[in-house]
Amino acid sequence: MKKVGIIMGSDSDLPIVQKAIDTLKDFGVPYEVHIFSAHRTPAEAAEFASSAAKNDFGVLIAAAGMAAHLAGAIAAQTVLPVIGIPCKSNTLDGIDALLSTVQMPSGIPVATVAINGGVNAALLSIEMLALSDDALREKLIQKRQKDHDAVIKKNNEIAANL
Amino acid sequence: MKKVGIIMGSDSDLPIVQKAIDTLKDFGVPYEVHIFSAHRTPAEAAEFASSAAKNDFGVLIAAAGMAAHLAGAIAAQTVLPVIGIPCKSNTLDGIDALLSTVQMPSGIPVATVAINGGVNAALLSIEMLALSDDALREKLIQKRQKDHDAVIKKNNEIAANL
Amino acid sequence: MKKVGIIMGSDSDLPIVQKAIDTLKDFGVPYEVHIFSAHRTPAEAAEFASSAAKNDFGVLIAAAGMAAHLAGAIAAQTVLPVIGIPCKSNTLDGIDALLSTVQMPSGIPVATVAINGGVNAALLSIEMLALSDDALREKLIQKRQKDHDAVIKKNNEIAANL
Amino acid sequence: MKKVGIIMGSDSDLPIVQKAIDTLKDFGVPYEVHIFSAHRTPAEAAEFASSAAKNDFGVLIAAAGMAAHLAGAIAAQTVLPVIGIPCKSNTLDGIDALLSTVQMPSGIPVATVAINGGVNAALLSIEMLALSDDALREKLIQKRQKDHDAVIKKNNEIAANL
Amino acid sequence: MKKVGIIMGSDSDLPIVQKAIDTLKDFGVPYEVHIFSAHRTPAEAAEFASSAAKNDFGVLIAAAGMAAHLAGAIAAQTVLPVIGIPCKSNTLDGIDALLSTVQMPSGIPVATVAINGGVNAALLSIEMLALSDDALREKLIQKRQKDHDAVIKKNNEIAANL
Amino acid sequence: MKKVGIIMGSDSDLPIVQKAIDTLKDFGVPYEVHIFSAHRTPAEAAEFASSAAKNDFGVLIAAAGMAAHLAGAIAAQTVLPVIGIPCKSNTLDGIDALLSTVQMPSGIPVATVAINGGVNAALLSIEMLALSDDALREKLIQKRQKDHDAVIKKNNEIAANL
Amino acid sequence: MKKVGIIMGSDSDLPIVQKAIDTLKDFGVPYEVHIFSAHRTPAEAAEFASSAAKNDFGVLIAAAGMAAHLAGAIAAQTVLPVIGIPCKSNTLDGIDALLSTVQMPSGIPVATVAINGGVNAALLSIEMLALSDDALREKLIQKRQKDHDAVIKKNNEIAANL
Amino acid sequence: MKKVGIIMGSDSDLPIVQKAIDTLKDFGVPYEVHIFSAHRTPAEAAEFASSAAKNDFGVLIAAAGMAAHLAGAIAAQTVLPVIGIPCKSNTLDGIDALLSTVQMPSGIPVATVAINGGVNAALLSIEMLALSDDALREKLIQKRQKDHDAVIKKNNEIAANL
Repeated sequence: MKKVGIIMGSDSDLPIVQKAIDTLKDFGVPYEVHIFSAHRTPAEAAEFASSAAKNDFGVLIAAAGMAAHLAGAIAAQTVLPVIGIPCKSNTLDGIDALLSTVQMPSGIPVATVAINGGVNAALLSIEMLALSDDALREKLIQKRQKDHDAVIKKNNEIAANL
Repeated sequence: MKKVGIIMGSDSDLPIVQKAIDTLKDFGVPYEVHIFSAHRTPAEAAEFASSAAKNDFGVLIAAAGMAAHLAGAIAAQTVLPVIGIPCKSNTLDGIDALLSTVQMPSGIPVATVAINGGVNAALLSIEMLALSDDALREKLIQKRQKDHDAVIKKNNEIAANL
Repeated sequence: MKKVGIIMGSDSDLPIVQKAIDTLKDFGVPYEVHIFSAHRTPAEAAEFASSAAKNDFGVLIAAAGMAAHLAGAIAAQTVLPVIGIPCKSNTLDGIDALLSTVQMPSGIPVATVAINGGVNAALLSIEMLALSDDALREKLIQKRQKDHDAVIKKNNEIAANL
Repeated sequence: MKKVGIIMGSDSDLPIVQKAIDTLKDFGVPYEVHIFSAHRTPAEAAEFASSAAKNDFGVLIAAAGMAAHLAGAIAAQTVLPVIGIPCKSNTLDGIDALLSTVQMPSGIPVATVAINGGVNAALLSIEMLALSDDALREKLIQKRQKDHDAVIKKNNEIAANL
Repeated sequence: MKKVGIIMGSDSDLPIVQKAIDTLKDFGVPYEVHIFSAHRTPAEAAEFASSAAKNDFGVLIAAAGMAAHLAGAIAAQTVLPVIGIPCKSNTLDGIDALLSTVQMPSGIPVATVAINGGVNAALLSIEMLALSDDALREKLIQKRQKDHDAVIKKNNEIAANL
Repeated sequence: MKKVGIIMGSDSDLPIVQKAIDTLKDFGVPYEVHIFSAHRTPAEAAEFASSAAKNDFGVLIAAAGMAAHLAGAIAAQTVLPVIGIPCKSNTLDGIDALLSTVQMPSGIPVATVAINGGVNAALLSIEMLALSDDALREKLIQKRQKDHDAVIKKNNEIAANL
Repeated sequence: MKKVGIIMGSDSDLPIVQKAIDTLKDFGVPYEVHIFSAHRTPAEAAEFASSAAKNDFGVLIAAAGMAAHLAGAIAAQTVLPVIGIPCKSNTLDGIDALLSTVQMPSGIPVATVAINGGVNAALLSIEMLALSDDALREKLIQKRQKDHDAVIKKNNEIAANL
Repeated sequence: MKKVGIIMGSDSDLPIVQKAIDTLKDFGVPYEVHIFSAHRTPAEAAEFASSAAKNDFGVLIAAAGMAAHLAGAIAAQTVLPVIGIPCKSNTLDGIDALLSTVQMPSGIPVATVAINGGVNAALLSIEMLALSDDALREKLIQKRQKDHDAVIKKNNEIAANL
């Protein structure tokens, strides 16, 4: 199976990235985690992205806050699908990171998930890998079922109690 | 090759969707276009999405404006990757559609592109399909190269003229 | 008397929903509370909404956060009036939920109240039921009078003290 | 059948209100239209609202722009359900009217629809009246069916052409 | 000297109003404080405002949060200058109250100060009263001088220490 | 009677300022109009403001767009009441000017009116001057009555026609 | 004199950049104009920026819209001062470009000017170059004087006419 | 070497300014720190700015919150480059300060950094001074290298641990 590459712009984004890691682990999807800043280590970020396809990555996830250029910078170097996680910082509640990640110009898409959406970034990467992996797809369906059942169980409990 | 399914919430979204269609045509990727409203035809939208995988779709693209629920409603019915295009309406400049599309709860991701980002939605779907299609991947690389060369050409012209 | 159906998208919305429940209890209005997610349990949410009228519900209240599709998804399945409560989440201070709830396309209205407006959602549902229930209407008038008197009492106290 | 009272804050709101009027006409629901400003004619607005119930109104709709106080001012004078339409003005794209209409304090709800949402305001009022009027309810179901069929027809056409 | 009338929409606004009260006390300006809600006690609010001029008030200050209609409702009932203080609530950081207070339609102005701007509301009312009161004007000049000197003192201290 | 001083930051603000001028003319209030930029002519702006009181001005109105510092800069130089009109520019729909005008720090108030609110700025200045001028006050009451009657007339016409 | 390098992300930004060019011409400051996209030609953009210092550039100006990464990408490659011009696009009125340009993480500053602020970007670059060029500084002072005089002239005209 | 002048509008901005001071100290750049309010001490702020060039300052940094006029007021008095730091206050998360600082009218630029961006303001000032100071430039390059190496080190650690 191809790997998912997770890049965060700063180790302050780790709590969000950890949720993506945990999700990938749950699905048994191989991954690598890196810290590469679009601005402090642009060459390394570019090198990582441009060689990702031949290094057996299938999907890349980039998490960054503020003027979150990381996902776009990664996407500029590869035609692998790139998922962007906008991270909330100390000001503006994440709207700066959301707009910096999602409003990409025509030609270089970034698949953007919700602010701080670490779990969904991982799930989206798995959905992509599952396009050619029926076993993985089956796990996604089971996860959906499990989430579904958890809601139904809570519904049954709450209906009985309120 | 798997098909890309494009669903728009209303035919008023067609100018944006047309850009996605043209891009898919350029790449020779098979597609189907549908109008299904999350609110006016929820059953048909759900039926289309839940049977998309077995109907040989690989990726779904959903375009909608205002309280843009369509991409999320589609995503709720499939584990295929779903790409959301927030469409600008008469008020609020598209920020309502962007937030309604991207801020999905944990468990059901939508890969959101820029407001009115029809071209990038198509390119993102192609990147996903190219994960298991080297010829398609090669076309993406060529398109990148072409876009790159167009910028360089404009740069050369402008450098000579200003 | 017809029942009020309260649906929340996640049990994390319970503190807001509880305010609606308490208000309905105060008025002696029968209600049911459910947890149905527009995305994790779309079929159950749709089934609940589409059968609500024949199950003796008069009004439905839906509470959800982030890309809050729940009220719209419920409204798509019934011509009972549907009230939406946008819930504040960890980011964006509830503006995502507000726009996702209120900006419904023409044809499928959602009666939206303030962010976290649990009490007002309940009062609005009671106002609707009171259209054909004079005793309930009288209780609403009394509640207004009580709220009025509480302000006047505070005004008298503060005028005496400051 | 009880009447729907439509109040606009200024005749500049008439294009939006006209959409509500046309919808009520389509459903054969009796209505009255008034221009009362919360600020220029507060006494008349209050008098209209406080006597609306005994004057055989069942639901009130208030449309206003900018610091749109009208719906709240009406709601303060009656326990009839009050629907607010935030109208877009020359600046701020309607967000001022939306927040001024929807963010009502606890105790006095306003059922808010989308910015410029004239049709949905009317439909919501009809849904409320239909709580005790099965014929009206039937018309709502037929309207939903018609809207549904129109989407399906467009879908069939577009599927054949693109 | 004419009095300043301070009206707050709820006693939860008292911490902001207290800053206005303290400022008026410092200047020896007579004042009255009231709690009148635009929505829960509209008649009392209107009565207070419409009789304010003959009850020897010169300026009115209204403080409210959320869909802050209070200042506008007061202004609709008097040609005394009305100052609005938008108060921050639990959501949206006060922007709802700001827009609801400041975006008044032509004909009924509200002199709006900053979100939570209790001190400035009081100072503004004093500036108005000082138009015909040279002693009060002198106190304002002295307050400005004192504020000026405090900055200069801090500047001298900081220049010496950093 | 004291004069109203109107200062605009640029002659591009004249259409908004003209509405203030016309209103002052209607009331027979003496005024002077100036163009002084807070940034291009700070000394002249400061000189005008600091000498305004002794030059027989009673109230100052400042109109500016973008980072609208003018009202604050004027207010810093006088204890006369200063009214700020935020003007809409080519971007951001006036929200930049609104926040730059209204969010003044404690000590230096600016009485802010709606974006492009030229008429209300003038009316507010007249309300202030009318604190010690009963004839002017009477004119304000008549204007309110006229505005009131115009609404009632429109209401009667529309009630007859729709 | 060192050159100013102007880079735009797309030739659609030329109308804004032209204002910067015209200003530099007026001051006789040498410049070069380039089109380099942060995403379509990242290598060329990086190469230009990283060699700018040795190629006799003193300041770089980058203009881009949407998720405007260009200024940050340039800044990441040089310790020359980099000025960012956020350009307004078809949606969101430029707020996306503003936040993407200004909210840079610690370590890599971008000197951001107003949305579409082409003239000010050029003036800021000239102010920087003038730090070691008294003749250029003198021209800046003259330009300020000219701008000042233009305001005073308009003020004199308007004072005479209104 | 020329000095950097740091002006804050209030001592409440000191935590942000301290980060700028520490950065300047690290680079051995001489500086002065002042507290001058654009509104409480406009004359002193203007005097400081207008004499800054002859007092051997090379760059000025201004930090202020809310309707942050300070940087613009300073820039109006000098052709030295002026850097603005928008400071987050109790409401609106700093967006008021950002827009008030960055949206300067044509003619008077302010080089704006991120909300609370104390470090970057200092680095930007150093980049400007380094235009004619190769030793300083070298320190900037070393700082960039150090920041780069810190990211690489963290990347190596995280790659080994997750």
